[in-house]
Amino acid sequence: MSSIVSKSPAAFASPLALADIEAAAARLRGHLVRTPLLESPALSALAGCRLLVKAEALQRTGAFKFRGALNKMLSLDPALRAKGVVASSSGNHGNALAAAAKMFGVPCKIVMPADAPAMKIANTRRNGADIILYDRARDDRFAIVEKLSHDTGMINVPPYDDADVMAGQGTIGLEIIGQCGEAGASPDAVLIPSSGGGLSSGITVAVKAGSPATQCYTVEPHGFDRMARSLAGGERQSNRPGAGSIQDALTGAPIPGKLTFAALAANGALGLTVTDEEAMQAMAALFEHLKLVAEPGGAAAVAAVLARKANFSGKTVVAVCSGGNVDAGLFAQAITCVPK
Amino acid sequence: MSSIVSKSPAAFASPLALADIEAAAARLRGHLVRTPLLESPALSALAGCRLLVKAEALQRTGAFKFRGALNKMLSLDPALRAKGVVASSSGNHGNALAAAAKMFGVPCKIVMPADAPAMKIANTRRNGADIILYDRARDDRFAIVEKLSHDTGMINVPPYDDADVMAGQGTIGLEIIGQCGEAGASPDAVLIPSSGGGLSSGITVAVKAGSPATQCYTVEPHGFDRMARSLAGGERQSNRPGAGSIQDALTGAPIPGKLTFAALAANGALGLTVTDEEAMQAMAALFEHLKLVAEPGGAAAVAAVLARKANFSGKTVVAVCSGGNVDAGLFAQAITCVPK
Repeated sequence: MSSIVSKSPAAFASPLALADIEAAAARLRGHLVRTPLLESPALSALAGCRLLVKAEALQRTGAFKFRGALNKMLSLDPALRAKGVVASSSGNHGNALAAAAKMFGVPCKIVMPADAPAMKIANTRRNGADIILYDRARDDRFAIVEKLSHDTGMINVPPYDDADVMAGQGTIGLEIIGQCGEAGASPDAVLIPSSGGGLSSGITVAVKAGSPATQCYTVEPHGFDRMARSLAGGERQSNRPGAGSIQDALTGAPIPGKLTFAALAANGALGLTVTDEEAMQAMAALFEHLKLVAEPGGAAAVAAVLARKANFSGKTVVAVCSGGNVDAGLFAQAITCVPK
Repeated sequence: MSSIVSKSPAAFASPLALADIEAAAARLRGHLVRTPLLESPALSALAGCRLLVKAEALQRTGAFKFRGALNKMLSLDPALRAKGVVASSSGNHGNALAAAAKMFGVPCKIVMPADAPAMKIANTRRNGADIILYDRARDDRFAIVEKLSHDTGMINVPPYDDADVMAGQGTIGLEIIGQCGEAGASPDAVLIPSSGGGLSSGITVAVKAGSPATQCYTVEPHGFDRMARSLAGGERQSNRPGAGSIQDALTGAPIPGKLTFAALAANGALGLTVTDEEAMQAMAALFEHLKLVAEPGGAAAVAAVLARKANFSGKTVVAVCSGGNVDAGLFAQAITCVPK
């Protein structure tokens, strides 16, 4: 199949429905921070549009991942859940799953790359998880997780390609629609950082259900544009080898998930990319104007707006700031050393 | 009168009532961020208590001051308001008043110290205010404001000792009580950064009305303990000369306000102080555990909890993080260079 002929959204069926996300929201009630939707006239002036930022770095564990991980834990059969959980993660999913497992008092093993940010490894360990480090270049992390799950009976909780995980992340989309209403804002576009697509697919399904005219965008690091090319080409495509990025939260998935891709494609999402320097500039802008700490991948969607990766001029745009687990040295560099 | 014999709270009458604050909340509805009350198990472990942080740095203009300034503007007679407003400010009050004046399209003049943080001067200028810089050592800022108001007819909006300003800041206290209820938390103590006392008095009145058993504390920089000594001594006392602090938001008032002091004393508030190093350590903890940007003075209440300035062990404690307008270089220093 040619990758330049894109299919229409009608050619795809979404594996996730609004009702799934509403059920997740009901299940998660009382366990989450309803993160604020923030704006500042100075930031909007910088962006050339009305920019509203969903401050999901303020979520428990410092990233959106807690929503999906806890929804999964709450959805598991209690007898299965008692066996414990295992996952591979570049950091945020693992830490979130560890925090959720701790709530239930069940064991948790997380398979993390040895070069993950120190803060992410420390956070996950503090939540009581057993951490297995792997070598990104040499090891197959999915095989490690499969073997662990097989040998121990612990439940493998996928980081993105799972309906319960996607529905949990999608609760952010319900909040965005509600908070836009409160702010008198009708969003023309919603931009969402993306790796495997769990966050972007969940939010897109919720947003399109509540506001069908809104265009949703995934945002990936330059060189990791698997979802952008998949959405453009109408079928899942892998990352090309050899790229690197400091946006570590967005580099883990080698190819979009089957379910996440189908949900995004069915809802007509488009893909954008940002460079590491653009992500760092967005971190500085979020520091200065909204008093938010964002990690590089967490700032990707804001970066795409500030760098004008599509024509948002004069429009109302929501960008999701998905996480804030960044080492202090890198954050200091972003706010003091990056040319604006 | 001896300063070591303290009067009982019953000896003071509060000039501010819950009804004033509820009226302010109704007036301000739709104009404010309902800032989240955040917590993290790791931060609570560090503090040795259940620590909830009211993230008021996320308020419009990056500090709580917008609440009081806008409540004042909304309360003014429209014919007076049209003449414009003038105020002296170390930064956050001036910026907030400028933003509020901009909403009404009326002129605004702000008298600021020449050594105010660059970010605060830039923010205020961006909001369209005319800025008059003064020399802290040489000039009487209150006299400058009085003269400006007299010469132009512009309304002098005091930074703290004003019932409308205090009532606006007090809406944070209403939110704290509501959010503690949602979180299943019954606060033993509420800690509030303090300079002239506008924020601390407003919050204290609201908190004590909703939760009479809660002990409220003001927190000041070491060397600027005017409110702590006033509360201990039962009458207003001035700062001693010669002190300096990077907690610039908390050094402006030479002596507590008459109204603010009376409201705090009537509600049995106590005063604590923190060093600049303790404030910097709290900034680092807020960065790491809650993904919040706090300025030094904004982190003072969190610092008092982390540095165990009273016995909070095992208790439920709310600390207000009141602002986040800090220059990047100083923030970078706090998160990378301060020993924990």
